[in-house]
Amino acid sequence: MAYEKTVEGQIRREAKSGGGGYGGSAPAKAAGDKTAVRRILDQVRAEGRDALTAPEGKLVCDAYGIAVPKEGVAATAADAAKLAQDMGFPVVLKIVSPEILHKTEAGGVLVGLRSAAEVERGFVTIMANAAKHNPQARLLGVQVQQMIGGGQEVIIGAVTDPSFGKLVAFGLGGILVEVLKDVTFRLAPLAQGEALSMLDSIQAAEVLKGVRGAEPVDRAALSAMIERVSQLIADFPEIAEMDLNPVFASAKGAVAADVRIVVDFAPQPERFRPSQDEIVRQMNRIMRPATVAVIGASSEDRKIGNSVMKNLINGGYQGKIYPIHPKADEIMGCKAYKSVLDVPGDIDVAVFAIPAKLVAQALVEVGKKGIPGAVLIPSGFAETGNVEGQTELVRIARQYNIRLMGPNIYGFYYTPKNLCATFCTAYDVKGKAALSSQSGGIGMAIIGFSRSAGMGVSAIVGLGNKSDIDEDDLLTFFEQDENTEIIAQHFEDLKDGRSFAEVARRVSKKKPVVVLKAGRTSLGARAASSHTGALAGNDKIYDDVFKQAGVIRARSLRDLLEFARGIPKLPTPQGENVVIITGAGGSGVLLSDACVDNGLSLMTMPADLDAAFRKFIPPFGAAGNPVDITGGEPPATYANTIRLGLEDPRIHAIILGYWHTIITPPMVFAKLVIEVKEEMKAKGIEKPIVASLAGDVEVEEAAEYLYRHGVPSYAYSTEIPVAVLGAKYKWARGAGLI
Amino acid sequence: MAYEKTVEGQIRREAKSGGGGYGGSAPAKAAGDKTAVRRILDQVRAEGRDALTAPEGKLVCDAYGIAVPKEGVAATAADAAKLAQDMGFPVVLKIVSPEILHKTEAGGVLVGLRSAAEVERGFVTIMANAAKHNPQARLLGVQVQQMIGGGQEVIIGAVTDPSFGKLVAFGLGGILVEVLKDVTFRLAPLAQGEALSMLDSIQAAEVLKGVRGAEPVDRAALSAMIERVSQLIADFPEIAEMDLNPVFASAKGAVAADVRIVVDFAPQPERFRPSQDEIVRQMNRIMRPATVAVIGASSEDRKIGNSVMKNLINGGYQGKIYPIHPKADEIMGCKAYKSVLDVPGDIDVAVFAIPAKLVAQALVEVGKKGIPGAVLIPSGFAETGNVEGQTELVRIARQYNIRLMGPNIYGFYYTPKNLCATFCTAYDVKGKAALSSQSGGIGMAIIGFSRSAGMGVSAIVGLGNKSDIDEDDLLTFFEQDENTEIIAQHFEDLKDGRSFAEVARRVSKKKPVVVLKAGRTSLGARAASSHTGALAGNDKIYDDVFKQAGVIRARSLRDLLEFARGIPKLPTPQGENVVIITGAGGSGVLLSDACVDNGLSLMTMPADLDAAFRKFIPPFGAAGNPVDITGGEPPATYANTIRLGLEDPRIHAIILGYWHTIITPPMVFAKLVIEVKEEMKAKGIEKPIVASLAGDVEVEEAAEYLYRHGVPSYAYSTEIPVAVLGAKYKWARGAGLI
Repeated sequence: MAYEKTVEGQIRREAKSGGGGYGGSAPAKAAGDKTAVRRILDQVRAEGRDALTAPEGKLVCDAYGIAVPKEGVAATAADAAKLAQDMGFPVVLKIVSPEILHKTEAGGVLVGLRSAAEVERGFVTIMANAAKHNPQARLLGVQVQQMIGGGQEVIIGAVTDPSFGKLVAFGLGGILVEVLKDVTFRLAPLAQGEALSMLDSIQAAEVLKGVRGAEPVDRAALSAMIERVSQLIADFPEIAEMDLNPVFASAKGAVAADVRIVVDFAPQPERFRPSQDEIVRQMNRIMRPATVAVIGASSEDRKIGNSVMKNLINGGYQGKIYPIHPKADEIMGCKAYKSVLDVPGDIDVAVFAIPAKLVAQALVEVGKKGIPGAVLIPSGFAETGNVEGQTELVRIARQYNIRLMGPNIYGFYYTPKNLCATFCTAYDVKGKAALSSQSGGIGMAIIGFSRSAGMGVSAIVGLGNKSDIDEDDLLTFFEQDENTEIIAQHFEDLKDGRSFAEVARRVSKKKPVVVLKAGRTSLGARAASSHTGALAGNDKIYDDVFKQAGVIRARSLRDLLEFARGIPKLPTPQGENVVIITGAGGSGVLLSDACVDNGLSLMTMPADLDAAFRKFIPPFGAAGNPVDITGGEPPATYANTIRLGLEDPRIHAIILGYWHTIITPPMVFAKLVIEVKEEMKAKGIEKPIVASLAGDVEVEEAAEYLYRHGVPSYAYSTEIPVAVLGAKYKWARGAGLI
Repeated sequence: MAYEKTVEGQIRREAKSGGGGYGGSAPAKAAGDKTAVRRILDQVRAEGRDALTAPEGKLVCDAYGIAVPKEGVAATAADAAKLAQDMGFPVVLKIVSPEILHKTEAGGVLVGLRSAAEVERGFVTIMANAAKHNPQARLLGVQVQQMIGGGQEVIIGAVTDPSFGKLVAFGLGGILVEVLKDVTFRLAPLAQGEALSMLDSIQAAEVLKGVRGAEPVDRAALSAMIERVSQLIADFPEIAEMDLNPVFASAKGAVAADVRIVVDFAPQPERFRPSQDEIVRQMNRIMRPATVAVIGASSEDRKIGNSVMKNLINGGYQGKIYPIHPKADEIMGCKAYKSVLDVPGDIDVAVFAIPAKLVAQALVEVGKKGIPGAVLIPSGFAETGNVEGQTELVRIARQYNIRLMGPNIYGFYYTPKNLCATFCTAYDVKGKAALSSQSGGIGMAIIGFSRSAGMGVSAIVGLGNKSDIDEDDLLTFFEQDENTEIIAQHFEDLKDGRSFAEVARRVSKKKPVVVLKAGRTSLGARAASSHTGALAGNDKIYDDVFKQAGVIRARSLRDLLEFARGIPKLPTPQGENVVIITGAGGSGVLLSDACVDNGLSLMTMPADLDAAFRKFIPPFGAAGNPVDITGGEPPATYANTIRLGLEDPRIHAIILGYWHTIITPPMVFAKLVIEVKEEMKAKGIEKPIVASLAGDVEVEEAAEYLYRHGVPSYAYSTEIPVAVLGAKYKWARGAGLI
């Protein structure tokens, strides 16, 4: 008799200690019988299969404490009845015979048997049917299986993403979710608490809490099952995809009614991954070099090597510049060399401005010279189909321990060093935002916007083909760069999403990380052998992983730019209570809409605070939240209410809605806001303030003044200032600061 | 025996002719037995009830051909078996006894009976149980009811919205939809085809088409049921809410398993609604007056009456201006009068700039003078709680047939007449966009943005408290105003949503109507007695009705403004094929994302067209769509590809992604685009073109140049130009132009 264990036992079985957790947090507790699983997988590999059979799948589940329906094989009718009685009714009976593959056709399946008597009769019926169907068949007995159902159908699964590696998935089962794709992903293995967070991350999360009189599901059992799947795929990377579908979750526990496991024994390619210290050491020399070589420097106008030299010199770079040119003795006042090997002393970074076909040879010289970084402006590599040429550069780089930026880039800017290592125009508005882009066009948009909006930046970096240096290298550098307070990145893909997520999770605790992931809607169809695999819209994975890593996702280029500009201006809020103070009721309504859109909580105004606001506003104005001071009010009304908003410790952030009047003109408003803000700052009070300005064109000047003085402000827009505040809040929450 | 009719018969019963359809389209066919329903409702009213009993609900459904489960009452076991056999198994049996209310407790209910024998046995069991339960009970027999189930659960319902009146609702049934609120609404009665469109308007529409091997539902039966509900509530306005929930829809038809009908016999207040001709006549005198009186005109600086006079005069208004003042003889060079009654000749409109308390008396004089319109700038009415004062104004207006704009507004602008009837600054950038706002603050934002962006406007109108003139009056005026090509409106509510929808549906066929509905997220909880009522998030109704009426909904103030600015610049596309031509691959990806976000179709490039594009671009460029011409190309490459895009008749709209280079500087690009556009225009080819410009600040000037010449263009944004094109497409589709 093969009867194995009770579901209760499986669910409640205490886990031993888990493996290494993700991202440094405490790992979720879940440990399984690795030996048992290894044995099964070895068998599958030996037989050259790429999927487990259903019984193998169940054994794997058993080994990791994932509850599956109870079952056993009975040789007699009495045995069958006893088994059924032990596991509880209803049960399913199935003939067990190596010769009978299509059990239903053979009359070898009965479902929904509800009593011992029915089971006994059923046993006899099935055996007779089978014997009649195939008189030669060996009848080994009848399988008795617990019939699962009721509760809520959910799906738990796992996929292997080319960029992110192992991910666990959770969603509601059934037709609707298949259609609505209401599923959530996390990098595996999960950290403590993450499995539970998945239950709240689906659109229909409310269903699990019990609706229409249904009991809430056993969240502990469900999240434990997710954790076990997470641990299983972390322990056995050869498990490529996995489906527990459906899992029946009820108030009493969770049981996986069906298991599907797909394997892939091909070894995963190792990725080059220097240590954090090594990255920092090399990136610091590249980004803040004392000496720069320009390979392909030129005196000829309109040549890239000329533009780079001009930008270095005119940008005000104070380090040493070494033009490298096969013939010239001097370029733009700098002594030129034939090769970097001829340059006396150390070189920190070499900027390449030569045609693609000459890059490899020059890169060898860079390596021999011991230069730690090469900025590869030239195009003509992977982006034009020349993958081999690019691979060759990477090979050389690994040989000589050179880090490569590019190829196919505009170069980079690092303003604290007045460094414009690029063929674009020089850029000089210094500040605390570090931006990067995968694409040159977007890089130019960053430069134009930054200059136009007066957004101070610490760095703008082009990553292009990302043959080597990528987003996580930049994150690692900017993390420790004292000139950077926010990191904003545009990219179309992540070569190593897992590294990015790990680094971003660490960095975003210290500095906001904003990303614009392009290509989010061109998902295409991914080949997938499992149900979970098919559900995995690539973009949804990015979405969930960004959240898991505390990364703020911008939905548009303009949002990326506005967030980079606005977030560092704002102090970190100390709590969730947002108050709108507005001179225009209409703006108040739109600002409230924007608060909901951006996940901000409009504070429910306490009676005493309401009364305090009312003292300053006309009787027909509205306190509550928004505080509507009405349109015809003098500067004092704005000043008094803003001061009150800043002073009261229950309020954590303020959104201003200004309405242009002759009584309080735009610049008068702007200056009073800053005065009150400074007055409060002197008392040690700093809260985020953003403003929406409605009025004639003079409000543009007022908005600029406010922005310059630390209040992100926008003319003719109610949504952008609130989105900026919302992004700051997202970061603060992700970093655990509120 | 009360057996009534077959479900098949109910579903297939041919409808007779319907009542008056909504909005001028052919009405959906559905007619019912009004007499039967009238009889039931009279009974309900007589008994002072506000809901129908379940049997009454079924009778109403029968009268309108809405399929409900077949049922009948049997007096004997044989009768019961016969009934069951006729209606088909399985069936439910229920005791019928006036003395037994809780049938289940009495052992008086049996479900899932599957054969005549089971039914006969069941009859005996139930009768015995009931007799035992209450020996005194009169046992009238056993109700035999068809047991419905299987197929897809859906909900069909109706609600009465305070603004929109009768609406039908459709959604998927079950827990998930209750949680996800996946439901769609339409104004009732439905026009031909609208019921069918509802089946496609829910998120999970795919479910109805059959997923996971399920058969598609009978769409004809389902939409017929929606139409019958629509007709029923149109025929009987006292039906306030209605639920058919669940309706089981399968390949074989649709049956409503449960019916709930809530009634409200209170008469609906009549709304003042002049004829379209009358509205046009009066609005034309108000908006394009030959003579204007300013009640409360003043020579004193900073007085509203002074600002209005200044704006009229300095704005360049060429009509006659009559200042009205109790004492002055002359104000700002215009002869003043003590009352409008003293003015010789006709006055078209009176602008009020006097305190609230003086308005009523002056309005009586306006009425006596026969002035058709009053622009009520003063505040101090409903918005400050003075509802009575406002009601009094409306009473006077009705008495003298005056149309009121406001009160509590900034006034209005009508640029073709150089008319600035407002206390704000004068505005002079003429164009074809007519804008209005419910709020003064938003009005000021419109003015500021318009001036700053050089957006030409025909009118800007403040509607404030909307005591009389509202959005549909403006739509009716602008519809026939030859100076207006697009209408953009901000509002927080619609006093008469039904009128708005009816007028907007007509107007949007001729001119785009864009709205910003504020307050969309502050839904609050609405009291509702039915399930459908509770589902009716007010904003979802606005969303669906806007779509039904062909209205473009802006999601933000900036979108409203950009759509108003951009849409009239673009010719109407002749088809859905959009092509992106870009110098920056990175922009191409973001522009593609934006196309998906905005419902645009990226054309699948035919092989010959692909080859034709390839001729102009470098070998490593990418044809397909986006056409990536790569970054280093000269002006000719842009010109050639854009020309090809305009010339080929298979392409209907073009999105340009420009990348700033020294080879093709921004203004060179801008000028070549306009040259090619003009060249094609001379050949009779006009297609919408929008552009996204990535580059240093010079791209701002280029974007302005392009915009001025008919190509909506944006620096540093990939999403806004595509959103503008998307809005134009939404309009063209709604108006049936593509």
